[in-house]
Amino acid sequence: MSLTAKDVQTIIRTGVPMAEDIDLRVESLSSDHARVRVPFRAQAIRPGGTLSGPVLMSAADAAMYAAIMGALGKVEMAVTSNLNINFLKKPAPADLIAEATLLRLGRRLAFVEVSLFCDGDETLVAHATGSYALPQQPVSPTEA
Amino acid sequence: MSLTAKDVQTIIRTGVPMAEDIDLRVESLSSDHARVRVPFRAQAIRPGGTLSGPVLMSAADAAMYAAIMGALGKVEMAVTSNLNINFLKKPAPADLIAEATLLRLGRRLAFVEVSLFCDGDETLVAHATGSYALPQQPVSPTEA
Amino acid sequence: MSLTAKDVQTIIRTGVPMAEDIDLRVESLSSDHARVRVPFRAQAIRPGGTLSGPVLMSAADAAMYAAIMGALGKVEMAVTSNLNINFLKKPAPADLIAEATLLRLGRRLAFVEVSLFCDGDETLVAHATGSYALPQQPVSPTEA
Amino acid sequence: MSLTAKDVQTIIRTGVPMAEDIDLRVESLSSDHARVRVPFRAQAIRPGGTLSGPVLMSAADAAMYAAIMGALGKVEMAVTSNLNINFLKKPAPADLIAEATLLRLGRRLAFVEVSLFCDGDETLVAHATGSYALPQQPVSPTEA
Repeated sequence: MSLTAKDVQTIIRTGVPMAEDIDLRVESLSSDHARVRVPFRAQAIRPGGTLSGPVLMSAADAAMYAAIMGALGKVEMAVTSNLNINFLKKPAPADLIAEATLLRLGRRLAFVEVSLFCDGDETLVAHATGSYALPQQPVSPTEA
Repeated sequence: MSLTAKDVQTIIRTGVPMAEDIDLRVESLSSDHARVRVPFRAQAIRPGGTLSGPVLMSAADAAMYAAIMGALGKVEMAVTSNLNINFLKKPAPADLIAEATLLRLGRRLAFVEVSLFCDGDETLVAHATGSYALPQQPVSPTEA
Repeated sequence: MSLTAKDVQTIIRTGVPMAEDIDLRVESLSSDHARVRVPFRAQAIRPGGTLSGPVLMSAADAAMYAAIMGALGKVEMAVTSNLNINFLKKPAPADLIAEATLLRLGRRLAFVEVSLFCDGDETLVAHATGSYALPQQPVSPTEA
Repeated sequence: MSLTAKDVQTIIRTGVPMAEDIDLRVESLSSDHARVRVPFRAQAIRPGGTLSGPVLMSAADAAMYAAIMGALGKVEMAVTSNLNINFLKKPAPADLIAEATLLRLGRRLAFVEVSLFCDGDETLVAHATGSYALPQQPVSPTEA
């Protein structure tokens, strides 16, 4: 039931057309981590274009979802419950990297943190946290 | 310096290609309010597609920005500082509406709230709040 | 199983000593709404004291919890999952009011919005949203 | 203009009575980091008390403010603009530690991340991010 980065990329692109539109790639995956890349040329920045909010948010959301699949395998019914993002700095003209780390994997909710930066520069351009509601497991009654 | 809904739609679509990709429309605008529509057929939901997180976030962000332009006119340098979104319910197959209301227009930060629902059903599918950093005005020293 | 505002005030003050320290009162309660008051004299503002962040956050959290008990009755195991607050304006020297409204009551999560203002002035001083994880009900398998 | 952990503790306790009520201590401070402790015996948990939300939020807010003073010295007019907190796990009966790290120090806004855990156990019990509006400096016109 363990998935590769490539598997997760396919799942995300199938489910989220915007992820395919920006050529989003899942570069690495482990049981509590995922790394996503959005190529610069594919960020669809046109002349006059400056607001990359939706690209950053899409990358953050995809990285979170990838990290959860890294932990749990294919979780078809997991849905984003909350996403909070701080925009720290205007991104440079470079690939965007989103690194997601699981903060807590509960039975009902998973919490993830995402650092976003430009390839080749560790300075954060954005930082996000979020939670995913996990599908109901037919199991023991404990906490969230 | 007052802008029409159509003006704001053009500004947003020029700056945010994702907004054009989803055929985002600014339907109405006032000094503390904006209403945005994402046509259902343009939400790019393909077979197997279920996660509309990025579409909802893009609509929320655009509605916030529109509301700020409704208040201030063309604010070229306004940038999203924070966006927090709660996903409440799976959207129905219908146009998505995002209604943004200014909570507070400070000198340096504007705070906006957005209700997202499907056309024809007032039940919220998502709810967002966010802040925008406003460009520095060469003026009097007061608060944020 | 329906609770009065006074019942909820007692439950909150018993569980949250900080709420008692600031003499927090639950003024009204309905199935999707709660109104909380923090008397000015009890906000513990001393000479030099200016940062009322914790008082505002405590009031927001209590109002959310009260609104959930208004909807569900005594929910012993409900716990705050996420709270996001924007501080909009320095509060005036007056009683603080927190008005909470249920945004969505799901089976597993409840989402609440809170407007905070000073008594006698409708201008918002802060605005919060949050989610509560609800205790597991031994029931039908649907969504969050 | 550099401050010690003890200086910052005094500033916070003077300005935020709730911080003094919970015997909040600033344990360490650097130019991009602060560590705060809330002694267990002082968390005011009475029989029946379970909801420590306000204590966690107060600790997170104090740690953020401390980290900003570690970077900038005494910043009298800095005010919290946004605080977002995820509650991950019920805290154990132990001292609460809040570790704040500066994510970004802009000219107008500072962004901080806080990890909260119980002394002796690295497992996160909560995680917060937030922004502070910094006082206007009479300086060069750049960005937020």
